[in-house]
Amino acid sequence: MTRTVVESKTRTAIIGFDQPFCVIGERINPTGRKKLAAELEAGDFSTVEKDALEQAACGATMLDVNAGVVYNSNPDPNETEPPLMRRMIALVQGLVDLPLCIDSSVPAALEAGLETCEGRPLLNSVTGEEERLELILPLVKKYNVPVVAISNDDTGISEDPDVRFAVARKIVERAADFGVPAHDIVVDPLVMPIGAMATAGRQVFALVRRLREELKVNTTCGASNVSFGLPNRHGVNAAFLPMAIAAGMTSAIMNPVRPQEMEAIRAANLLMNNDPNGAAWIAANRAPAAEGAAPRGRAGREGRRRRAV
Amino acid sequence: MTRTVVESKTRTAIIGFDQPFCVIGERINPTGRKKLAAELEAGDFSTVEKDALEQAACGATMLDVNAGVVYNSNPDPNETEPPLMRRMIALVQGLVDLPLCIDSSVPAALEAGLETCEGRPLLNSVTGEEERLELILPLVKKYNVPVVAISNDDTGISEDPDVRFAVARKIVERAADFGVPAHDIVVDPLVMPIGAMATAGRQVFALVRRLREELKVNTTCGASNVSFGLPNRHGVNAAFLPMAIAAGMTSAIMNPVRPQEMEAIRAANLLMNNDPNGAAWIAANRAPAAEGAAPRGRAGREGRRRRAV
Repeated sequence: MTRTVVESKTRTAIIGFDQPFCVIGERINPTGRKKLAAELEAGDFSTVEKDALEQAACGATMLDVNAGVVYNSNPDPNETEPPLMRRMIALVQGLVDLPLCIDSSVPAALEAGLETCEGRPLLNSVTGEEERLELILPLVKKYNVPVVAISNDDTGISEDPDVRFAVARKIVERAADFGVPAHDIVVDPLVMPIGAMATAGRQVFALVRRLREELKVNTTCGASNVSFGLPNRHGVNAAFLPMAIAAGMTSAIMNPVRPQEMEAIRAANLLMNNDPNGAAWIAANRAPAAEGAAPRGRAGREGRRRRAV
Repeated sequence: MTRTVVESKTRTAIIGFDQPFCVIGERINPTGRKKLAAELEAGDFSTVEKDALEQAACGATMLDVNAGVVYNSNPDPNETEPPLMRRMIALVQGLVDLPLCIDSSVPAALEAGLETCEGRPLLNSVTGEEERLELILPLVKKYNVPVVAISNDDTGISEDPDVRFAVARKIVERAADFGVPAHDIVVDPLVMPIGAMATAGRQVFALVRRLREELKVNTTCGASNVSFGLPNRHGVNAAFLPMAIAAGMTSAIMNPVRPQEMEAIRAANLLMNNDPNGAAWIAANRAPAAEGAAPRGRAGREGRRRRAV
């Protein structure tokens, strides 16, 4: 049974086929958040603090920390990201005890995060691009951490799921060459917006199943991408997540502050038998009693059938 | 591609792997509804009328009609159900143009329904019990209608999904002996309450997949049974349905008046590429524009990655 172990100083989170779905909180990320980017450049970390506490309170399993801000005063992320990553990691791990996910496309920022982070963080990410494989996998090995593997390569993101699967396999094989086991690779098969590619949902469900059955790896995705451009995005996401979980997806990088998606995940955990005795579901839905007095439909009919025939 | 064709006088509904999920409205059923049972015995059909119109308005694909009331004045359903079924079928098909599902455990009531119903109704149901097979399959053949096959037999309902699969296979084979093709069998693999059997969800997802891949049959279930006894049943149902759809389930007998479940089904149709151009999703969620201005997460990060490295 594949298990990816991620740890803070005091807490362990396991991503795995027999575990509750791992919710990686995506909020601490200045990409596309101009206000947060400006705050970080000005040395104001109040939004980071708020996002860390709020995501933890909403039930995130792990928090992603991305320091990818492009400063107005210095446009080179190779210079600005590493110190900012150190500062953000130190701040967040001082506030919450959740394991962290160090998220950057700048190798020096990833290493700065690895040096600063206590426990066993998840590294986010490597891709199938040759340069990335050669830069990131040695870090993964050196720090003995699990890593997110995004299934694009030097040719870009393929629309063909078989190509994305082949890229994932290449990363797993290359990691093995570096001594990194498959259970420390969490593959992101890349979820396309369903509004742009009608087969995007079926693609990812089939891919996740193959990744699980053939490569024995855990999987993740940027869950909200699937609904990009559509009305009522939370409604789409709240169906997508249980479907992906039924196909075998074991984590997602997402916004844990959204109740509709979080309820769908709790229900999916229950339905996948990853919520022992339904304790988490019942705790989250403290109602005085179950709705209704008797089962409707089959159970009732079965009873009647025995009498009538 | 398996397709089960069900028709009213003027409308066709197709249950199939490449079709939007078929919602069979369960409301017109006096089982467990004492007030409705009393009304029917008194000759008052106002609730039936209301339930027919409301379920149609809420987007049901098909309406189940069950006349299984036990009269205080006459406890023999073999006498009371056939004339009541005739009357209810005639009433409902005069009110709405949806195809109907004739639901009874009394063979004479099924035949009365078949005689009264226009088009090509779905017969609900046969089981793997020897007596039922011999009574119902000739009706299925004579009237050339599709039939719901419930996977229990003379030994009862097995908790072992392999046994339930074997019962389904037996029914499909026996039907073939009567000249009834597999595409006219809609198997109900029987959904147990997750609160009583923690593996119930995984069982049914695996069973549905096998029924689809090995027997090539459509499937249905009494969807709300899964959440019996739990708090926030709609939350459980609204995750169960997309998960079952992702596994290959093609219809459910359920309450279409519940918005949370119906939204989950519309989203699942979209995500399974069974909602061409997202037209049904967009029509049901008429918002002025999509939420958010840019994709968060991967897409944004990919763009940045190209710049930063």
